[in-house]
Amino acid sequence: MFRRRYPPVASMPGTYILSPDSLKPKIHAMSYSAESLKEFDVKDLSLIPALVSEFHVTWLDVQGLGDRTVLDKLAEIFSLHKLAMADVVNVPQRPKVESYDGYLFLITRMAEKRPDTDQDVEQVSMFLGKNFVLTFQENYGDVLDPLRERIRNEKGPIRHEGAGYLAYSILDAVIDGFFPVLEELGEDLATLEQDALDAPTPQIMQESNQARKTLLILRRVIWPQRDAINSLLRDPHPLISDLVRVYLRDCHDHCLQIADVIESYREIVGSITNTYLSAVSNRTNEIMKVLTIMASIFIPLTFIAGIYGMNFEYMPELHFRYAYPILLLVMAVAGIGMVLYFRRQGWIGSDKDKE
Amino acid sequence: MFRRRYPPVASMPGTYILSPDSLKPKIHAMSYSAESLKEFDVKDLSLIPALVSEFHVTWLDVQGLGDRTVLDKLAEIFSLHKLAMADVVNVPQRPKVESYDGYLFLITRMAEKRPDTDQDVEQVSMFLGKNFVLTFQENYGDVLDPLRERIRNEKGPIRHEGAGYLAYSILDAVIDGFFPVLEELGEDLATLEQDALDAPTPQIMQESNQARKTLLILRRVIWPQRDAINSLLRDPHPLISDLVRVYLRDCHDHCLQIADVIESYREIVGSITNTYLSAVSNRTNEIMKVLTIMASIFIPLTFIAGIYGMNFEYMPELHFRYAYPILLLVMAVAGIGMVLYFRRQGWIGSDKDKE
Amino acid sequence: MFRRRYPPVASMPGTYILSPDSLKPKIHAMSYSAESLKEFDVKDLSLIPALVSEFHVTWLDVQGLGDRTVLDKLAEIFSLHKLAMADVVNVPQRPKVESYDGYLFLITRMAEKRPDTDQDVEQVSMFLGKNFVLTFQENYGDVLDPLRERIRNEKGPIRHEGAGYLAYSILDAVIDGFFPVLEELGEDLATLEQDALDAPTPQIMQESNQARKTLLILRRVIWPQRDAINSLLRDPHPLISDLVRVYLRDCHDHCLQIADVIESYREIVGSITNTYLSAVSNRTNEIMKVLTIMASIFIPLTFIAGIYGMNFEYMPELHFRYAYPILLLVMAVAGIGMVLYFRRQGWIGSDKDKE
Amino acid sequence: MFRRRYPPVASMPGTYILSPDSLKPKIHAMSYSAESLKEFDVKDLSLIPALVSEFHVTWLDVQGLGDRTVLDKLAEIFSLHKLAMADVVNVPQRPKVESYDGYLFLITRMAEKRPDTDQDVEQVSMFLGKNFVLTFQENYGDVLDPLRERIRNEKGPIRHEGAGYLAYSILDAVIDGFFPVLEELGEDLATLEQDALDAPTPQIMQESNQARKTLLILRRVIWPQRDAINSLLRDPHPLISDLVRVYLRDCHDHCLQIADVIESYREIVGSITNTYLSAVSNRTNEIMKVLTIMASIFIPLTFIAGIYGMNFEYMPELHFRYAYPILLLVMAVAGIGMVLYFRRQGWIGSDKDKE
Amino acid sequence: MFRRRYPPVASMPGTYILSPDSLKPKIHAMSYSAESLKEFDVKDLSLIPALVSEFHVTWLDVQGLGDRTVLDKLAEIFSLHKLAMADVVNVPQRPKVESYDGYLFLITRMAEKRPDTDQDVEQVSMFLGKNFVLTFQENYGDVLDPLRERIRNEKGPIRHEGAGYLAYSILDAVIDGFFPVLEELGEDLATLEQDALDAPTPQIMQESNQARKTLLILRRVIWPQRDAINSLLRDPHPLISDLVRVYLRDCHDHCLQIADVIESYREIVGSITNTYLSAVSNRTNEIMKVLTIMASIFIPLTFIAGIYGMNFEYMPELHFRYAYPILLLVMAVAGIGMVLYFRRQGWIGSDKDKE
Repeated sequence: MFRRRYPPVASMPGTYILSPDSLKPKIHAMSYSAESLKEFDVKDLSLIPALVSEFHVTWLDVQGLGDRTVLDKLAEIFSLHKLAMADVVNVPQRPKVESYDGYLFLITRMAEKRPDTDQDVEQVSMFLGKNFVLTFQENYGDVLDPLRERIRNEKGPIRHEGAGYLAYSILDAVIDGFFPVLEELGEDLATLEQDALDAPTPQIMQESNQARKTLLILRRVIWPQRDAINSLLRDPHPLISDLVRVYLRDCHDHCLQIADVIESYREIVGSITNTYLSAVSNRTNEIMKVLTIMASIFIPLTFIAGIYGMNFEYMPELHFRYAYPILLLVMAVAGIGMVLYFRRQGWIGSDKDKE
Repeated sequence: MFRRRYPPVASMPGTYILSPDSLKPKIHAMSYSAESLKEFDVKDLSLIPALVSEFHVTWLDVQGLGDRTVLDKLAEIFSLHKLAMADVVNVPQRPKVESYDGYLFLITRMAEKRPDTDQDVEQVSMFLGKNFVLTFQENYGDVLDPLRERIRNEKGPIRHEGAGYLAYSILDAVIDGFFPVLEELGEDLATLEQDALDAPTPQIMQESNQARKTLLILRRVIWPQRDAINSLLRDPHPLISDLVRVYLRDCHDHCLQIADVIESYREIVGSITNTYLSAVSNRTNEIMKVLTIMASIFIPLTFIAGIYGMNFEYMPELHFRYAYPILLLVMAVAGIGMVLYFRRQGWIGSDKDKE
Repeated sequence: MFRRRYPPVASMPGTYILSPDSLKPKIHAMSYSAESLKEFDVKDLSLIPALVSEFHVTWLDVQGLGDRTVLDKLAEIFSLHKLAMADVVNVPQRPKVESYDGYLFLITRMAEKRPDTDQDVEQVSMFLGKNFVLTFQENYGDVLDPLRERIRNEKGPIRHEGAGYLAYSILDAVIDGFFPVLEELGEDLATLEQDALDAPTPQIMQESNQARKTLLILRRVIWPQRDAINSLLRDPHPLISDLVRVYLRDCHDHCLQIADVIESYREIVGSITNTYLSAVSNRTNEIMKVLTIMASIFIPLTFIAGIYGMNFEYMPELHFRYAYPILLLVMAVAGIGMVLYFRRQGWIGSDKDKE
Repeated sequence: MFRRRYPPVASMPGTYILSPDSLKPKIHAMSYSAESLKEFDVKDLSLIPALVSEFHVTWLDVQGLGDRTVLDKLAEIFSLHKLAMADVVNVPQRPKVESYDGYLFLITRMAEKRPDTDQDVEQVSMFLGKNFVLTFQENYGDVLDPLRERIRNEKGPIRHEGAGYLAYSILDAVIDGFFPVLEELGEDLATLEQDALDAPTPQIMQESNQARKTLLILRRVIWPQRDAINSLLRDPHPLISDLVRVYLRDCHDHCLQIADVIESYREIVGSITNTYLSAVSNRTNEIMKVLTIMASIFIPLTFIAGIYGMNFEYMPELHFRYAYPILLLVMAVAGIGMVLYFRRQGWIGSDKDKE
Repeated sequence: MFRRRYPPVASMPGTYILSPDSLKPKIHAMSYSAESLKEFDVKDLSLIPALVSEFHVTWLDVQGLGDRTVLDKLAEIFSLHKLAMADVVNVPQRPKVESYDGYLFLITRMAEKRPDTDQDVEQVSMFLGKNFVLTFQENYGDVLDPLRERIRNEKGPIRHEGAGYLAYSILDAVIDGFFPVLEELGEDLATLEQDALDAPTPQIMQESNQARKTLLILRRVIWPQRDAINSLLRDPHPLISDLVRVYLRDCHDHCLQIADVIESYREIVGSITNTYLSAVSNRTNEIMKVLTIMASIFIPLTFIAGIYGMNFEYMPELHFRYAYPILLLVMAVAGIGMVLYFRRQGWIGSDKDKE
């Protein structure tokens, strides 16, 4: 459930632990101004300072956190605070925005598929400086390829605006990535709800618990995300221009929409549980009815048959010529009487209404 | 459940997707001042700037969002922000008020009938400028015809006031449209509650879940609506005169009333579920009673009959003259004894009290 | 459930609908200063302006809202805003305080008996001006007669203070009117709670649902009432003197007490539901025990009897002299064994402990 | 449940009703400065003004509210507001602090034993003036004797500090009086929780409901108490010195601790209900298992015996020499087979695991 | 459950009670500046003032609170307020930060293992002065040894920074100590959840109640902890430098993460209860099915056998040659018919689907 990488208790602040199966970092650079674009995989970290100072905006995207030397070198180049670097590596952290001297540090989390665990909501850590954006991701691959394509094709204002706009664009893409995840989840909930009514198997309980946990994870991501963006909107920061602020307002709006949907889904999961429990009760009810009807009809009849199976010497009825057919008739009447009684009680016949 | 139109992740901000089954836009213009009124269906968009500058107030109502050229042209004429235009098309959005340079952008949502899905609560997007109101709706037809009639008939202050008053009037009509919807829903809930007590069928669970979802949708509409109006009341805006602010206070009040009713209904839905579950438990109880009574009376009697059905050679009672009638008597006494016991337990006879 | 009178959607703001069964207005005037008092039923509305200007304080109480002419005339005399007048007629509204030019508009609601519907909590609308209080009630009769008596008898400071003090006195009386209602409800809840334990009939569920709804209505009245008074305490208003503010603080306190009690009662209603459900479960349990005991004792015995009822030719036991009494003994031992087993399980005998 | 003494609706503000069984007031005076102490039972109220002006601090403790003359006289001597006096008598009121001209009015409530009703949490009303503290209690006896002892013995700073410190000391004693009450309640809850698992009788439901109500009462006392102290901490008042404020912070802290414990207990009461309901379900389950096992084993066997009890003329098996022992064998095998099946299902044998 | 040490009601503020089994205090001193370090067990308290004035930072760690003389002496040396000293001894207290003249007083609580009671979350009280940190713990041993090691080894900035940084480091270690506790708890919850589905025994209810209580305790610790740190962040204090504030922000973040996890776990505990209850219902259901199937098949057949076991003289079928085999066939058909009916109802065969 909860599984955050954390250093040993009481170790030096800013300590981070590399997971043994962390991937080797791949660093991708996109440096651009309105007119020019330079894109390449960074092999030699010492080239970076020149690159950053030469271009209007440089986006360094680090995928894989498995090499302490690389991380330390980057921290040194951009003078990143060791607490921030620890938050980059000790994933997952709560989404947040922190202002440091000369740069903003943003943590956001990205859902590419419906999360089963906190791990599926991959953390994207972002440093936003005057003319650079530095992103860190734990795994290779992300939802940002269309954004890279936009930079290459000079679509939209992205090549004309500064690093703040790029940071916004990344944030926006990460947040909008929750919509398809929620859509898929919503369809599964609709199916689950129908099944809870039609075919209440214990699996429904399991799946609704799973959905509840997925929603918990998404919620734990989106609420702090909203707060983080809100703090950017409220407190003007030199790295966030007024233009970017308008766009961030849109981002904030999307967070609210996602939060709304999550809360609605949580209520629906609750009503699925209720529906399932009531369906089980109903089943028990139906089973009891069958048992009661069968027992109520045949146990008394068996008793009557039992009486005439007794071996008393002096039982005058036994010798009466029409006793047997008369008794059969009496039994039939009693049986039919019971059936009619149960039908009047709505226990028979009403079965169809209820299905 | 959740079904919002949204552009591909990481696409350019302000991108919108036209649904293939979007309706062709119909644009209806009402331009008026206190003395004059011009009303017509706009075919040629290039006439609009002249119209707007000529009249005191111009209301352009666009129904149908299925033509990108028309939308882009309108955005150009009124210099609408592309993020706002995206919110117009990517429905549904949360109700909100956003201030842009030269105009206010309002999103509100309109319930003409009891909503089953978010789709039934049609979004009405509104741009309020100095002397124009521009509304966008996805479908043809709305609840605003009486308002148009009032403009035509110069009823009320509407022809004397500016665009802000018109915007208020539209908002007011949209919000008041929730009252009949809630009234109908309230009547259904009252019926449902009675049925849960009198005739607890699984359908009740289904219907109460449906009501719960309807209330979730209404709630997701009305709370942000309230916040949006509140922000207009709190932060003076040049396009909202003091006179209009008094009217908006009334609007805000209606939002609160609607929110109150929704919260009450949500509680009632919860108590319907409880009632239903307890009614099912009671039914099971009643069924068990019948079974237990029948079994408890006849199983022991059958056992007694079984004893005298045994074929032992030496069973003196079998040959006793009055054994049979005495045994019948014993059985009758035992049976009646059981009946009396159950009656004293309140299992028989008390049935009537409970119905 | 929800039943608010409201005008057609998109009609002119300030429109109100007179219910066909509205009562004809009766207008009662009490004009007083410290020394003099004039009290009469107003027939001629044109006398009012002179009356108001002549006396220190004039209280006009309008009971019955069934005459549009009267309402319009009063609105004209006191320059009442049409939105306020609409709130007077379109009952019920949320309690609130609104400040208009020259007067305060207060809506409050009065519970004379335990409410089943919103209708039972009659709205009292109040306009407080410099030297007049104008109240509107839908029905004849109210809880204010002791107040009128106090004015007549010059008891208390009421004749020495201004219109603000009168308004406070009315508000105070209306709010204190909730105490007896809550007291009665509390006694009913205590009975209901005891019954849920002792005699769990489905009616309890129905009554606790009814109580829940009553509490919902009271809550929807008292919370906004508290907010309204609070806003008067917070924001100084020239019509509310410091002296009156001290008294209003007391009023506010009573609102808080009422709200406390309502929340407590809501919890109690919840625990009644729980108690009832658990009592039903216990009943089912008891019934099942009886069934299981009867069946477990007699079904095996019947089986044994069945064996010796078989007609095989070669069953040596049948011819054994003491087979029958021995078998009876075996059966008795088996039966008593079962009884002892169940007693050890606490199913028999422990019945008494549980009652 | 709710039982507050309140005057008739619409009576004069400040009206109070003396309960017929109110006790006669006993007034105890302790007047002290650092060096001297005068302590006596006040018989003649006219001595009070001299006493108050002579000593540094005078504590007048009035126990019993059954004499209107005494109350009125005291109100006159100390110029107490009639609304405050009404709050003294119309118990119980919410704990609060109100500032009047020249004195502070504090209401607090004292729990000497675990409360069953609001009555058990006795109201202590306190007037704090420049050099006097005037307390009113409804009943004789309180938790303040150790405090009186401290005054007598000049222990602690109490004799050196002013009236504010005395008021704090009283408040502190009253609040700390909740700790033993909660401790006792906590032990009862622990017992109840264990019983709900081990011996789920309906009484548990009743007791947990009782505990829930006790907690409701305590909560209704402690939250407003916390708010009242908080308001004293926030808004400096000349009667509360900085030194006393430090002590009040400690008081506030204790309120928070008490509130924490109450909320925890409320959760525990909820989980007791859940445990009880699940234990009842489990019992039903166990009972059903016994029934099902008995019925499933013996009903089929009885059927087989029934077959060979039929009186058909031509039943070849009946005449077969070893039919009877073979049939008995078949029956034993069938019975044992059922037992094994149920054991594999975990219905038999697993009983022990579950106990 | 609740067990706080508290002095007798109405005793002098600042009174504390030594528990009879309190441990003798052991005082460990670490005095350091960037260059030098002095570490020893303090035997003679009179050395402390010199030590504190000599070194840049002195950390005095008192483990064991069982000697009033030592506590009083320390309070005297550092001029500690008696209310603070009472909070040190009367454990447990809520985590908090209080500012006194010349020092800050911090209460925090340390979880070394999963807490069953409040006692397991050991209180660490801390006084932070200009150049000293004084900590009090009730028991020997803590989670701070790695921190002491860091001081000894001059790792990190700790030897270069002041007392504020040391206090932060202690706080950070205490808070981070919750992560392993939560991780272990999370794994237990995951197991419990799986068991609730697969093997619903009453023990699960007990364990989930235990987990709920553990979470309550952790929650009661972490929320006030967060508030305390927040108040340090918000209100600048001379003892907390800007550098330390940046680190405290990280601490605050960890509190939020812990609080998030606790809230998630609470939801999971709730869903375990639901799962368990539904699993029990399902079991009952399955048991009922077996009973109903057995009874419905064999009771009617037994009745038929009973008929032909009657001893009537005139029962023509008895003498019919093929009556017996035909009847057996009829019975087989009836039995198989019932089986098929139940299979069609999904009661047989669907068993496998549900497991």
